[in-house]
Amino acid sequence: MEKINTLINELETLKPDLFGKDFLLTWDNSLDSLKAVMLVAEILQNFHWQKKPWRIFDYGLAISIFRDNSTRTRFSFASAVNGLGLALAELDEVKSQIAHGETVRETANMISFLTEVIGIRDDMYPGEGHTYMLEVANAISEGYQQGILAQRPAVINLQCDLDHPTQVLSDLLKLKDYFGGWENLKGKKIAMSWAYSPSYGKPLSVPQGIINLMTRFGMNVVLAHPEGYDLLPETIQSAFSFAQESGGSFSQTTLMEEAFQNADIVYPKSWAPMSVMQQRTKLLKAGDKQGLKELEMHCLAQNEKYIDWECDDEMMKLTKNGNALYEHCLPADISDVSCENGEVAKSVFEKYRLHTYQEAGYKPFVIAAMIFMSKVKEPAAKLRSFV
Amino acid sequence: MEKINTLINELETLKPDLFGKDFLLTWDNSLDSLKAVMLVAEILQNFHWQKKPWRIFDYGLAISIFRDNSTRTRFSFASAVNGLGLALAELDEVKSQIAHGETVRETANMISFLTEVIGIRDDMYPGEGHTYMLEVANAISEGYQQGILAQRPAVINLQCDLDHPTQVLSDLLKLKDYFGGWENLKGKKIAMSWAYSPSYGKPLSVPQGIINLMTRFGMNVVLAHPEGYDLLPETIQSAFSFAQESGGSFSQTTLMEEAFQNADIVYPKSWAPMSVMQQRTKLLKAGDKQGLKELEMHCLAQNEKYIDWECDDEMMKLTKNGNALYEHCLPADISDVSCENGEVAKSVFEKYRLHTYQEAGYKPFVIAAMIFMSKVKEPAAKLRSFV
Amino acid sequence: MEKINTLINELETLKPDLFGKDFLLTWDNSLDSLKAVMLVAEILQNFHWQKKPWRIFDYGLAISIFRDNSTRTRFSFASAVNGLGLALAELDEVKSQIAHGETVRETANMISFLTEVIGIRDDMYPGEGHTYMLEVANAISEGYQQGILAQRPAVINLQCDLDHPTQVLSDLLKLKDYFGGWENLKGKKIAMSWAYSPSYGKPLSVPQGIINLMTRFGMNVVLAHPEGYDLLPETIQSAFSFAQESGGSFSQTTLMEEAFQNADIVYPKSWAPMSVMQQRTKLLKAGDKQGLKELEMHCLAQNEKYIDWECDDEMMKLTKNGNALYEHCLPADISDVSCENGEVAKSVFEKYRLHTYQEAGYKPFVIAAMIFMSKVKEPAAKLRSFV
Repeated sequence: MEKINTLINELETLKPDLFGKDFLLTWDNSLDSLKAVMLVAEILQNFHWQKKPWRIFDYGLAISIFRDNSTRTRFSFASAVNGLGLALAELDEVKSQIAHGETVRETANMISFLTEVIGIRDDMYPGEGHTYMLEVANAISEGYQQGILAQRPAVINLQCDLDHPTQVLSDLLKLKDYFGGWENLKGKKIAMSWAYSPSYGKPLSVPQGIINLMTRFGMNVVLAHPEGYDLLPETIQSAFSFAQESGGSFSQTTLMEEAFQNADIVYPKSWAPMSVMQQRTKLLKAGDKQGLKELEMHCLAQNEKYIDWECDDEMMKLTKNGNALYEHCLPADISDVSCENGEVAKSVFEKYRLHTYQEAGYKPFVIAAMIFMSKVKEPAAKLRSFV
Repeated sequence: MEKINTLINELETLKPDLFGKDFLLTWDNSLDSLKAVMLVAEILQNFHWQKKPWRIFDYGLAISIFRDNSTRTRFSFASAVNGLGLALAELDEVKSQIAHGETVRETANMISFLTEVIGIRDDMYPGEGHTYMLEVANAISEGYQQGILAQRPAVINLQCDLDHPTQVLSDLLKLKDYFGGWENLKGKKIAMSWAYSPSYGKPLSVPQGIINLMTRFGMNVVLAHPEGYDLLPETIQSAFSFAQESGGSFSQTTLMEEAFQNADIVYPKSWAPMSVMQQRTKLLKAGDKQGLKELEMHCLAQNEKYIDWECDDEMMKLTKNGNALYEHCLPADISDVSCENGEVAKSVFEKYRLHTYQEAGYKPFVIAAMIFMSKVKEPAAKLRSFV
Repeated sequence: MEKINTLINELETLKPDLFGKDFLLTWDNSLDSLKAVMLVAEILQNFHWQKKPWRIFDYGLAISIFRDNSTRTRFSFASAVNGLGLALAELDEVKSQIAHGETVRETANMISFLTEVIGIRDDMYPGEGHTYMLEVANAISEGYQQGILAQRPAVINLQCDLDHPTQVLSDLLKLKDYFGGWENLKGKKIAMSWAYSPSYGKPLSVPQGIINLMTRFGMNVVLAHPEGYDLLPETIQSAFSFAQESGGSFSQTTLMEEAFQNADIVYPKSWAPMSVMQQRTKLLKAGDKQGLKELEMHCLAQNEKYIDWECDDEMMKLTKNGNALYEHCLPADISDVSCENGEVAKSVFEKYRLHTYQEAGYKPFVIAAMIFMSKVKEPAAKLRSFV
């Protein structure tokens, strides 16, 4: 109880601006808003461990729209809305008449008459995912303002082409716990590094999210990737300015070793070059199967050149006391486990496996916290009522 | 609150016969029963807007069986049962062993041990959908009478080959609201008109449902369609006799213009000729892919002849003060939006778009009201307990 | 109420060892544990008939993993967890990233942060299903012990390659009810017999489960099947020793008639020879489509030889007073109904149809009882609180 009260007291010192809002990008939110989400996540997690209910809805739907595969995020969302008192309804765009050319604007309202939350994953196509979420958000705003909907559902980004807020806030909560508070993160060096994977077309949202979140907490963020594996330029620029504001730093390198050098935290993960993702989107829209096949083969061949970008024991030796914390959004491509050569050596992953589970364990509560803050006018009072 | 009390008082003046019953066809129900469903729907909708819970079940399942695609009805049903306190379980006939030739009679009981409601959409094959619903209803009646089931689930028609009661009652509630009460609907002219669509095989349930519901409320119903696009003969006959009983009228024409002339309400919508649907059913049963392909091509070519059956500004000018209310079950085939040439012009649809959203917004509450009336012995008392 | 109190009193005389445990195999559980599950199932069923809620969870997920088709077990699980207060979340291994080579260990933890129960059906491959369930169980045990999970989900076997405990305990509850108590089952003869079916590859779990459960209750169990349709040897051995312990008997024959002779209960059901199932597993793993096709044809031809293994009126005449109770897990292959020649004659099945429905009706409550006993420290006290 004491820990919960401490966290609620800290929450009261903040000035978040989340009530009635969607949660789409961390960089559209103030530092207080981000901290509030994380504090509420910790509080709800503590209630869960103490088997105290934290329901805030009598009834209502939470709708998820997954335009890409997912296990952990799917179940994190299902868990979060269940704890808050909502029933999950998944919008399957194949089963539904969206497949029949129904407009987003109409569908968004048609499914929202008793809906409190809409969670969306749409991460495969640069320029698409975030735009789609805005379309949905605008559609239900109109429906709400025009008296079609009794309540406006909160739109939660479960991963888009730009950011993966529920993931990176979970990553940050793990760091807060591991290093003992946000203050202790100042000056810590985190290596957000590309890593080799035999797969292709992984989204850019995690590295873009990491460099734009960790820089805001005074950390020294180094982004490492081979030439050609660039992230979206605007996300690079914003990372620089966030670092400046916070007193942290942001830099880039094309050497994994340089990023790992004396790092406190490493986040080695594969992603596809932005240019490839954009080309892929074009080909998909054109339905050019041959082109897609060639692009994939080209990319896999391209990746092969960087097969040595693996987080192995040698690489880890370079980090602070050879002992940096390893983070990953999971599932990781583990060499000799899920593939022959992957992002991380079996020995390294096994050493940090339980840490990655804890990291993932924050996600249901981060999602719940985003919904909670959007729906509850007096968060601290409401949380105290659960104690 | 006052509005709710007024509605409950009106409900008490009626003698509905819905307790323990299924809701399959509007024309199997008395006028009092139909009005009761609509009043309860309005009441529950008002509770929702006032954020007052209207749960009637401690626990239990609501099962949906969708034999055709659906977005709005799927989510309307999910919303309705959630508000009433049930958990949704969708019977996917592919996943389930029905695919293995299990009999309807057996399956219906196997899934019903803790089930309060079974919602079914089966609208594609004339002579099939309603028959299937009766099979399910009879199976669970036997199970209940024989002591297999502790409760008899209510079967709700979410669209069959004959009628689409949850839709047309929502359409009617929109009219009640728009014109200020049922009394004001007497003598109003509604044009239920076929309209062109580049698609094929749309069910007959909506036009059949409209002409058999609106005629019961004293409206002047005109059915318009090109030659060959007939509805089921028995639904035409019943429309005539309903009109006679109510003092309204029912007539048919092969000219869209004639139907629109001085109309108060227009409902332009595409459907497939009954004969085509019947032929289609035969071919599907025979698994005659070639025949189906030819039939589709034949039909689309046939439709092309009537490409000018579009609800455009010119057509709307013909209506009462050029200002008739446009209704549609959605999604509409909108020219230059969802297709090149469709049922309605973009300009017309946009003018009435929010009206169609409100129209759709009644559906979750109409479904909830059907379940409520089937399950609650003292509806008015129960509703008062929510106030 | 009186019946419920009697059952609770009986429950208090037992020393079950189920708290915090999974339920995977009946033969891993003591007689007291099995009786406790069945008593609690009867009690919960009585609460349901008296419309008294029996919820034990404020919130939480119940996850089902179905690696084979299912209707009744799917809905039984959905019903059970709903009554207990959990929300169902189905893990679809196609939608999920398990399809991307994620390890069982990781996935099991990733989906369990707010999960109380995991129900698994994995019955197609000898040596696979039970092993998979143990992997899941070990994974979440580690997660719980290592502080990753706030609660350890109970793993419930919804049918594996070895046993089908929720089914056979339902079969036994039907016998308890039919013959008036466990005592009256002593010395009763039950014929667990193979029967002809035009299908192929049916699991062995039901016959293996039946011979290993009924022998523990002092029954005389006769297993009949054509040569070559053997069950797993260890399940035969354990059946012999269970019979010895209980004072019942176990024997085998290759004549259906001999098994039916003077039987009190008959359970005629088709299954595939163990050797075929094992070969099938190899071919599936090798992706040998041609081999699978040949194996299926070979098996169907093999089955044809035993087309006379049908439970028809002649066969039933051999039983005690020609009046044995017919049991089946459903769906049965009924001659002239679901196939030309099947496991049971239409006339026989129709006579016992409602009995088979009652038999199936216990399953939701058996599942609920397994979860209840795993999660509730003081079962009798909790049950009394529902009265």
